[in-house]
Amino acid sequence: MKILKRYEAFLKVVLFLLVVGIPNLSFGGSPEEDLFKQAKQIFSPLPQVMASEKNPITSEKVKLGKILFYESRISVDGTVSCIRCHPVSLYGADGLKKSIGNHCKVNPRNAPTLFNAAAQISAHWIGNRADVEDQARQSVIGPPSFGLPSYEALETKLKEIKGYNDLFKKAFPKEDDPINVDNFAKAIGAFERTLVTPSPFDAFLKGDKGALKEKEKSGLKTFMEAGCTACHSGQYLGGQMYQKFGMVEPYWKYTKSETIDEGRYVVTKNESDKYLFKVPVLRNVAKTAPYFHDGSVDKLEDAVWIMGKVQFGRDLTKSEIEEIIAFLKSLTGEISEDVLRVPLLPSSE
Amino acid sequence: MKILKRYEAFLKVVLFLLVVGIPNLSFGGSPEEDLFKQAKQIFSPLPQVMASEKNPITSEKVKLGKILFYESRISVDGTVSCIRCHPVSLYGADGLKKSIGNHCKVNPRNAPTLFNAAAQISAHWIGNRADVEDQARQSVIGPPSFGLPSYEALETKLKEIKGYNDLFKKAFPKEDDPINVDNFAKAIGAFERTLVTPSPFDAFLKGDKGALKEKEKSGLKTFMEAGCTACHSGQYLGGQMYQKFGMVEPYWKYTKSETIDEGRYVVTKNESDKYLFKVPVLRNVAKTAPYFHDGSVDKLEDAVWIMGKVQFGRDLTKSEIEEIIAFLKSLTGEISEDVLRVPLLPSSE
Repeated sequence: MKILKRYEAFLKVVLFLLVVGIPNLSFGGSPEEDLFKQAKQIFSPLPQVMASEKNPITSEKVKLGKILFYESRISVDGTVSCIRCHPVSLYGADGLKKSIGNHCKVNPRNAPTLFNAAAQISAHWIGNRADVEDQARQSVIGPPSFGLPSYEALETKLKEIKGYNDLFKKAFPKEDDPINVDNFAKAIGAFERTLVTPSPFDAFLKGDKGALKEKEKSGLKTFMEAGCTACHSGQYLGGQMYQKFGMVEPYWKYTKSETIDEGRYVVTKNESDKYLFKVPVLRNVAKTAPYFHDGSVDKLEDAVWIMGKVQFGRDLTKSEIEEIIAFLKSLTGEISEDVLRVPLLPSSE
Repeated sequence: MKILKRYEAFLKVVLFLLVVGIPNLSFGGSPEEDLFKQAKQIFSPLPQVMASEKNPITSEKVKLGKILFYESRISVDGTVSCIRCHPVSLYGADGLKKSIGNHCKVNPRNAPTLFNAAAQISAHWIGNRADVEDQARQSVIGPPSFGLPSYEALETKLKEIKGYNDLFKKAFPKEDDPINVDNFAKAIGAFERTLVTPSPFDAFLKGDKGALKEKEKSGLKTFMEAGCTACHSGQYLGGQMYQKFGMVEPYWKYTKSETIDEGRYVVTKNESDKYLFKVPVLRNVAKTAPYFHDGSVDKLEDAVWIMGKVQFGRDLTKSEIEEIIAFLKSLTGEISEDVLRVPLLPSSE
């Protein structure tokens, strides 16, 4: 094990090149056919919903969860709801470097979009929330979030709004006293598990080769060849691993970070987790500026260039960056009419 | 004039009783027919839109206005948008006593709903905004609102979001450089002028006598007999005059007001305007707690009782209050599917 540890950095690079290398395999068909086959090996189209065995999705749970997603009256100062930091109108992110919660408290990191987010290995940038349900639950007492003193305070506030009685009963029909933080988290989680936004790239992956324009296809090729797919792969183009931000050079050399965030190390206190962050999902990335865990970079072209620089030591050219961005824009998906419809909340009395 | 001034208070009471007296006239038909005829004399159904000659409504203007209504990136701290204090999910009010704006600054008064609000004699509780367009414009530099240092700052921020170029061009096709605060205000105003919510009471006024339940009809009768219609009449049941809050006794004797607000006097400095407020629109009132200019009363039943007490010196009975509330609930209207649909904002780049 000691030897393994010693060669850890080296092994990582080997493994890394192995993964990065895959897209360069030739399948021996036409270049277009090759591109399609390579893409199919690395990516998959979005599922219908991001299911969870622990929290089965039901329509009544989703209905309640969507209402709770908009509910601000339960926060400590009456201004915080899920939708505040994850507005649908901005593709589920709020455009701020770091979200601002109750009493103007600044959150430690940038609010990631909640679209296509529920199937990640964990929630939050450093994995300090197990899943979307855990994130919803902990936000209730999170000091810069809803800021309530206890879960009981949430239950009291929910029970004061009489309409919730019926809504929780319907969503959790087998329970006698269903208004509690667990069910609050499950309902919101169930709603979030429906938030998928299929895009032209999904149509392409399903076989509609005309779904991507030429420039987007070139961008896909460049994206794969540049090695981005080492981390940004699968259905979500991210969300499946932690990775060091700054493999080659420290990220703060190029970002406009005001402080140095030690990333996953904050959770684990393992030296090897320093500067590791959960690889973000790239779906709708063109719609969710600013970028990175601290929102320190405003423009997507700068973000792409920085990634090349600090992850690969590569100085991507202007046209490579343009191509990659063209591809990334093909990940902008469609929000369902159902999700776009504002729910009406039960009245205060 | 001096004599008139001397007897002003007395004349006001005479005029008041005259107006209050009207609903007690009998039309000589069945009680139900009489009620309908009386109601038709005092109220009218909502219009399709709240038109303005100064700001004609066009679909492109409404489309832009709705997008701008959700736009938070233009505020000084990136957290304030119209929708923040006027969320559709809560019928256009935010449930707070007083809205909280940029950097947690507290607004001086309760945020009234924006539904059915654009045809009032003025905007804001004390009439310090001419109309909804003026309100939108001034909110841009309002210190507790968007908090920008100047109108130019708004224009700069709007121009930074490239998608607005096209949207403003389409909404104001005859202008060369349409991105400016006037057009910002016109677009938002045009959107707000479409925010009408027809209710069962409108169906009743249009002749569908079954649209109100028996209890709601009794409530309507009580509402008229108690004298509420002296101020709460017309299409909106309010919004057409300023009136002293506390004709008989000071309002703060019964509300939980933390400070004494001098109302319209703050604007005009006329002694006779002390404690005058714009009569609020009662449509959707059951959905927009808390109540009064300072949101100092949580429950509608308390608000109704306080109105009887301080405006008429009447101690309304529990069943009178219940009936009035039943009627007020018939003013809860339907929000159109179009308004319920969240607009997608242009991306930051």
